[in-house]
Amino acid sequence: MTPQASILRTLLRADRPVVMAGAHDALSARLVEETGFDAVWASGFAVSASRAVPDASLLTMTDMLEAAQRMAGAVTIPIVADCDGGFGNVINTIHMVQVYERAGIAALCIEDSVFPKRCSLYQEPHRELVDSEEQALKIRAACEARREETVVIARTEAFVAGLGLQEALERAVMYADAGADAILVHSTRETGCEVLDFASHWHREVPLVAVPTTYTGIQVDEFARAGVRVIIFANQAMRASIRAMRETLLQLRADGSAASVEGQIAPLIEVADLVRLDQLRAHERRYLNHGLRVPQ
Amino acid sequence: MTPQASILRTLLRADRPVVMAGAHDALSARLVEETGFDAVWASGFAVSASRAVPDASLLTMTDMLEAAQRMAGAVTIPIVADCDGGFGNVINTIHMVQVYERAGIAALCIEDSVFPKRCSLYQEPHRELVDSEEQALKIRAACEARREETVVIARTEAFVAGLGLQEALERAVMYADAGADAILVHSTRETGCEVLDFASHWHREVPLVAVPTTYTGIQVDEFARAGVRVIIFANQAMRASIRAMRETLLQLRADGSAASVEGQIAPLIEVADLVRLDQLRAHERRYLNHGLRVPQ
Amino acid sequence: MTPQASILRTLLRADRPVVMAGAHDALSARLVEETGFDAVWASGFAVSASRAVPDASLLTMTDMLEAAQRMAGAVTIPIVADCDGGFGNVINTIHMVQVYERAGIAALCIEDSVFPKRCSLYQEPHRELVDSEEQALKIRAACEARREETVVIARTEAFVAGLGLQEALERAVMYADAGADAILVHSTRETGCEVLDFASHWHREVPLVAVPTTYTGIQVDEFARAGVRVIIFANQAMRASIRAMRETLLQLRADGSAASVEGQIAPLIEVADLVRLDQLRAHERRYLNHGLRVPQ
Amino acid sequence: MTPQASILRTLLRADRPVVMAGAHDALSARLVEETGFDAVWASGFAVSASRAVPDASLLTMTDMLEAAQRMAGAVTIPIVADCDGGFGNVINTIHMVQVYERAGIAALCIEDSVFPKRCSLYQEPHRELVDSEEQALKIRAACEARREETVVIARTEAFVAGLGLQEALERAVMYADAGADAILVHSTRETGCEVLDFASHWHREVPLVAVPTTYTGIQVDEFARAGVRVIIFANQAMRASIRAMRETLLQLRADGSAASVEGQIAPLIEVADLVRLDQLRAHERRYLNHGLRVPQ
Repeated sequence: MTPQASILRTLLRADRPVVMAGAHDALSARLVEETGFDAVWASGFAVSASRAVPDASLLTMTDMLEAAQRMAGAVTIPIVADCDGGFGNVINTIHMVQVYERAGIAALCIEDSVFPKRCSLYQEPHRELVDSEEQALKIRAACEARREETVVIARTEAFVAGLGLQEALERAVMYADAGADAILVHSTRETGCEVLDFASHWHREVPLVAVPTTYTGIQVDEFARAGVRVIIFANQAMRASIRAMRETLLQLRADGSAASVEGQIAPLIEVADLVRLDQLRAHERRYLNHGLRVPQ
Repeated sequence: MTPQASILRTLLRADRPVVMAGAHDALSARLVEETGFDAVWASGFAVSASRAVPDASLLTMTDMLEAAQRMAGAVTIPIVADCDGGFGNVINTIHMVQVYERAGIAALCIEDSVFPKRCSLYQEPHRELVDSEEQALKIRAACEARREETVVIARTEAFVAGLGLQEALERAVMYADAGADAILVHSTRETGCEVLDFASHWHREVPLVAVPTTYTGIQVDEFARAGVRVIIFANQAMRASIRAMRETLLQLRADGSAASVEGQIAPLIEVADLVRLDQLRAHERRYLNHGLRVPQ
Repeated sequence: MTPQASILRTLLRADRPVVMAGAHDALSARLVEETGFDAVWASGFAVSASRAVPDASLLTMTDMLEAAQRMAGAVTIPIVADCDGGFGNVINTIHMVQVYERAGIAALCIEDSVFPKRCSLYQEPHRELVDSEEQALKIRAACEARREETVVIARTEAFVAGLGLQEALERAVMYADAGADAILVHSTRETGCEVLDFASHWHREVPLVAVPTTYTGIQVDEFARAGVRVIIFANQAMRASIRAMRETLLQLRADGSAASVEGQIAPLIEVADLVRLDQLRAHERRYLNHGLRVPQ
Repeated sequence: MTPQASILRTLLRADRPVVMAGAHDALSARLVEETGFDAVWASGFAVSASRAVPDASLLTMTDMLEAAQRMAGAVTIPIVADCDGGFGNVINTIHMVQVYERAGIAALCIEDSVFPKRCSLYQEPHRELVDSEEQALKIRAACEARREETVVIARTEAFVAGLGLQEALERAVMYADAGADAILVHSTRETGCEVLDFASHWHREVPLVAVPTTYTGIQVDEFARAGVRVIIFANQAMRASIRAMRETLLQLRADGSAASVEGQIAPLIEVADLVRLDQLRAHERRYLNHGLRVPQ
């Protein structure tokens, strides 16, 4: 059993809402942990952006797993991996479960968009979904491929594809019946009405997950009261980093010196703390007599 | 010949100062390019931080090359790779030159600190340098291992090791004689006196490089007048990203909704622009009739 | 321009047949070079086998590129990469061309089987092909995405899918019209009749490629007389290694000592030659005074 | 706890000798498992050869871990990783233990040669060892860095460095006192006298390990009677593959057809069995109605 998966299962059964934030590398994952979130969302959108490519199945399962694995090595809270549609058909999905589980990833989120997928935020008009029975079989296969407690989250893009509440509910029921441990119902509306409406019609024990990227106005407690147990702030940290890096670089370019940006960037000591320089120094004191290298 | 190396050689011969900024992944490299810098510094400090480990030879040549290569794939300006001490002895350095050159990296910066190195910013008291003759041989070997125009930058940590101006100058002369295309003279003082003093004593054609991380008060033009031709703002972008991510995450955690952070993060459209979604859409229009997937 | 692509283009215009052999890692690629073949086929079947997974789109583009890139670093002859169907749709294919080209791969072979593909040797009854117009657009997109002389080989699985000569020829013409530099016509029959028949009906300048894995009885010269210019022995080296490793391991297990296998395995000196230990020693003599490490 | 580490600990306490064989990739690891060995030795010599580079610290920890991890994903028997000297100093070694353990590697073998190491088989005259106290601290640090049952094997190159029995014994005692779970005493003599002599003087519970690459004449039972509990046939499989691939490629080149080599290579069906095509087919039957892809 992977301990992180077990931690996540306990969280999903708790009374309070579970709040996650998205990361794109080990450092952002550690910041997610340090700022008190329950888990890290290994965001496909953010990892793709960090590699400077669109979120459109251009990064492969290998790339996404590498990113998630590096996050898992940097934190003790669970990693929830954004796995698109399982990176192909059900055979790819089974393979994915096996390798992600070996890598210690706590949870896999599998959506019903067709490969190659396209980011739901890109506002593509004609979104195509995998046939619901085929997708339910994929979810079942993912669950049966596990050898440990790994959490399987089934995500439906029914709202994003414009198929409406009924289709979203039917798919969610099928995925829950197939064994999904949670249902992520996605929406790109600017109000959360689709998600809240869905939640009001959801009568299963399987917990609901929301990703309020576009419907920013709803609070965690409001979601919780509506029956949404898990909230993921998926890409705000990455987008904050873009804004800050651009402004700092522009200022460096304009001023020609680092003095003016010093007040708006993390001091060197903060970077040292983040990478746990203190642990390295403790190891040096314990195992080396004279600093980093033993004299030769 | 790698075109990026050629671009960099032209820059090094130009009249105006060359200004670079550090990156830690493809996205930050693209921001460095978009904000008008001449080249990207693939910073060991920043790449290590992005992996949440100290800058102490814990990431390997493989890791550092991967990061630099991803940057090279995302920009058209040259990548200057921070190669520590060549990741071992002269044999490792030769191997490194061969694989970095094949990967299209424009320039390699090789320093005279002992493996495993420790970040010069960690203020370790007893810094040890490689014997100067051995290091000069390493620089010579690196230069002779090239098959293309790759730029070799020799970096001395003589000031950081507390060895003073004379040792710094002697080492720089030896490295220049060994074939180095540029000399990076490092200092962790809060004033730039060491570097400016060094520049006033440097009478070779080989250009000088400075990394004003601690001596933030000196401007690019001031460096240029003092004879320093290349300025690297090595880690400010990464440190800006840390500050911004932490603040945004804390606010998300405190507020429980994304509304309040929207004003301080890049909008989704800016992320789409950064990853060149327009190019993907142009490809779709040209090669697909009906959106991302051809109907089947 | 990648020199290896240029070498391959020259070979394709030569009078004599071009003969390639498949490899699965850098070592087997070097053996292909040392035994006198013109180019290395980075076989999807063999690379998948070396990773112990079926050849069914379980390894990703990232995995396949890594393998091809390692081969490219070990030899001076061109690498011809087996790229399945471009690892997705035309957008994936364009991305693939860009990253493979940057990695110095001389040629890309793109087939018309549907993603996820299944190895043609697995004798699956109902093989599905991509619509021929869609595939022709994919080939055109691949050709137009190049910035260098990279060779694009279009492979049709029409015979494998049981669609017959006419369909094979129509597809080949469409792919040639779309810009393909060569046409690989695949067949899994035990006689080469399909391929030879095809060749007798082929009247374009674009050279033909055959992979005689199942129809082992036809010689290179016979292919050449029939108009097939390129012959690929795709996986025999890997299959030889399996036979030999299994026998040697069984014998070690049975005998409990290495003595009895010594006569059937490469001596240590041969391994040292293959990895170019002589070059390492020459570097040591040139750049170190006292063996591998300079005394400290 | 990693199950593989636990399996290995049970083996080390068993009455019969433990016999391992070396692998260089997932496929050779699977052959090691299928032919009945107790564990897989992830050989630095063989992995380096498969990448076509000398075994001289040119491949990094990242490369070696990747190879070991791929082996671990392909078998259920334990992986024993050849970790050279811990890839640097004690700080590197601690980092290594953490990342290897997360990757599910059952055992780590750490030797006392200086970084960069050079393969003991290259017959370098002046082999240098790490100071024995420093090395003992490194072993202790490795043991204390574990969070699971990972086996730490301490390897001494004292015989290879020409330091004799007394030094070998003293080092072995120090490493055992530091917590090593087994002692690998290496020798490159053509007779096993050094190792057998060592064993006759060893009176600790900590089991001994031998690697009879050069002293091929001694049988497993003979080692066992002498008190050596673990025997590793480190690189014979890889060397068998080189011999076989070279001969097959030469014959293909000479004959111009595959017919003549068919008898000496694994048939296609054997490759399919090795990669577990039957499991893929079982998944298809269970989760797909009509072959590899569901009709769309």
